[in-house]
Amino acid sequence: MSLMWQEITQQPEVIENCLSLNRKTIDAIVARLENKAVSNVIIAARGTSDHAGIYGKYIIEIKKGIPVSLAAPSVFTIYDKNVDMSDSLVIAISQSGRAADALEVIRSARKQGAPTVAITNFEDSPLATEAEFHLFCGAGEEKSVAATKTFMAQIYLLAQLVAAWSRDESFKNELAGVPSLLSKTLESAEQIKNIVRIYRFMNECFVLARGTNYAIALEASLKIQETCYVRARGYATSDFHHGPFAMVGENMPVIVYAPKGESLKDNREMLEKLRNAGADILVVSNDPETLAMGDRSIEIADNVSDFVSPFINAMVAQIFACNLSALKGLNPDAPRGLSKVTYTR
Amino acid sequence: MSLMWQEITQQPEVIENCLSLNRKTIDAIVARLENKAVSNVIIAARGTSDHAGIYGKYIIEIKKGIPVSLAAPSVFTIYDKNVDMSDSLVIAISQSGRAADALEVIRSARKQGAPTVAITNFEDSPLATEAEFHLFCGAGEEKSVAATKTFMAQIYLLAQLVAAWSRDESFKNELAGVPSLLSKTLESAEQIKNIVRIYRFMNECFVLARGTNYAIALEASLKIQETCYVRARGYATSDFHHGPFAMVGENMPVIVYAPKGESLKDNREMLEKLRNAGADILVVSNDPETLAMGDRSIEIADNVSDFVSPFINAMVAQIFACNLSALKGLNPDAPRGLSKVTYTR
Repeated sequence: MSLMWQEITQQPEVIENCLSLNRKTIDAIVARLENKAVSNVIIAARGTSDHAGIYGKYIIEIKKGIPVSLAAPSVFTIYDKNVDMSDSLVIAISQSGRAADALEVIRSARKQGAPTVAITNFEDSPLATEAEFHLFCGAGEEKSVAATKTFMAQIYLLAQLVAAWSRDESFKNELAGVPSLLSKTLESAEQIKNIVRIYRFMNECFVLARGTNYAIALEASLKIQETCYVRARGYATSDFHHGPFAMVGENMPVIVYAPKGESLKDNREMLEKLRNAGADILVVSNDPETLAMGDRSIEIADNVSDFVSPFINAMVAQIFACNLSALKGLNPDAPRGLSKVTYTR
Repeated sequence: MSLMWQEITQQPEVIENCLSLNRKTIDAIVARLENKAVSNVIIAARGTSDHAGIYGKYIIEIKKGIPVSLAAPSVFTIYDKNVDMSDSLVIAISQSGRAADALEVIRSARKQGAPTVAITNFEDSPLATEAEFHLFCGAGEEKSVAATKTFMAQIYLLAQLVAAWSRDESFKNELAGVPSLLSKTLESAEQIKNIVRIYRFMNECFVLARGTNYAIALEASLKIQETCYVRARGYATSDFHHGPFAMVGENMPVIVYAPKGESLKDNREMLEKLRNAGADILVVSNDPETLAMGDRSIEIADNVSDFVSPFINAMVAQIFACNLSALKGLNPDAPRGLSKVTYTR
């Protein structure tokens, strides 16, 4: 049994503990933000953590109406320039807490008096200690190079922060149900494994979603890349019309995350277009009619908003990649050329 | 001769005219921005125009020190939410001026009193008329579906705007030399064509760059995708360490844009790592030692800053894609599944 699989199964428990570990810090951040209006939010992260940041961008913009910028860390590091963050809330996300570039952004922000938050899995990491506030994933050591439980904790902490900041009780209630939704998703692991069998010799695919689940399309494709060496490419359904669609020929495998909700209509239009182009389609959805539009499908829990479906979809993506890696005879825990901590500046 | 090729060759002239067509508007925008301090900039665009926006993000953050957010248009369209843009400068970029989602962002921004700028190639387009200011590409009709000259005009207008806004005379002077740099780059078209021959049967590749040229890595890979149906994927060199590097096996074709400048050191580290992994490397650079690190190389003009090398590199990328498409017996002007105007909301 791979470490990646063990860590996937730990997620309901990790998320269950996440809020109690961080409730006080979240309250302190919200209090700070009530004393200091921010006109924008800056998120610094890379790789999987950057995908968590993209989820964060959507929920902050939708729930708080504040524009969110994903930092281009090289502005701070290789160009050695400062950005005026005096009106910003600055959030750095890094599993190890040792991302040198995110650290530069946090240091610069603190000097300017901006509220800073680090989300990491190490309480004594440089980012955790440099930032004014630290949200702790508390996921236990993540041994697989392919991040799973720390990603889930990152997006959960972002969601809890936004729910508290926007005093959105219904969002809080929905988030309380995430651990049991994840347990339920784990129960469909065998079904997903059976579906994965058909992808044994796949060497490329597209992964599409829109809105909050765009972050999951990116993360799903990264997981497939690093654990299976399959040329997976994630796109927002909307961007896919602008160029990449030309790559879709007969039998091109495409995975579409299309849950009920605001993005369903656009995803269904894309599914139609993909069918007409002869693509081979896997649909992940909770809408029966949409599920029927795929050559095969994975059904997820019903009655979840676009803010919570990313948790379920992220787990489906992890189970998919982990099983495909095993089926291909690879080791998902140790992708070639990668190490667990990446110190890009 | 393809339309794409004709339009590539028109670029020195298009850029030559760009400033005089827009000088008054640029002055008016700068005057407006001097009366209204902005704490952040929001750029709304998709596809090729989004890559222009990424170049814009880097130069605004570096030259002006103001954080730039690339809009997630679905927040406005599918989630029907407003973002507080009262402290923002909002820029929409669209070749046709008919991108419905960018239009939503501009409308919302105008209602909030934010300065708005549209960059389009149609003076009477919805975006041109809705925005407070219109920067006109004046590129003449772009007939090839693969955008070339309008992309070049978009990044040139962004650069001229930032040069004027930051009163950066040396940047202005360097920008004045872009038309002749593009003419000079055109002279190396035959040399590029010869190099392209080896890629006749390539069906996948990575395209890497860092900093301002990251936008060009993305645009280069999109051009290859849409005109050649090659699985090209563009990455920032820094992000490439975080996962995608696992995809690099023996003989994987990788194109690295590595001009002299702030990003050279990091790109050279990546080149070393790629060599050790057995990748097949094409280097585009003006640094002799770096050029020698590739299995083959394209030499570009010397003495250009990181703010101007993207113009040259964009043209190299276009010439590469256009020639590869022809060599593969394809028609670069009419990629399957795409149309010139994409109305995503």
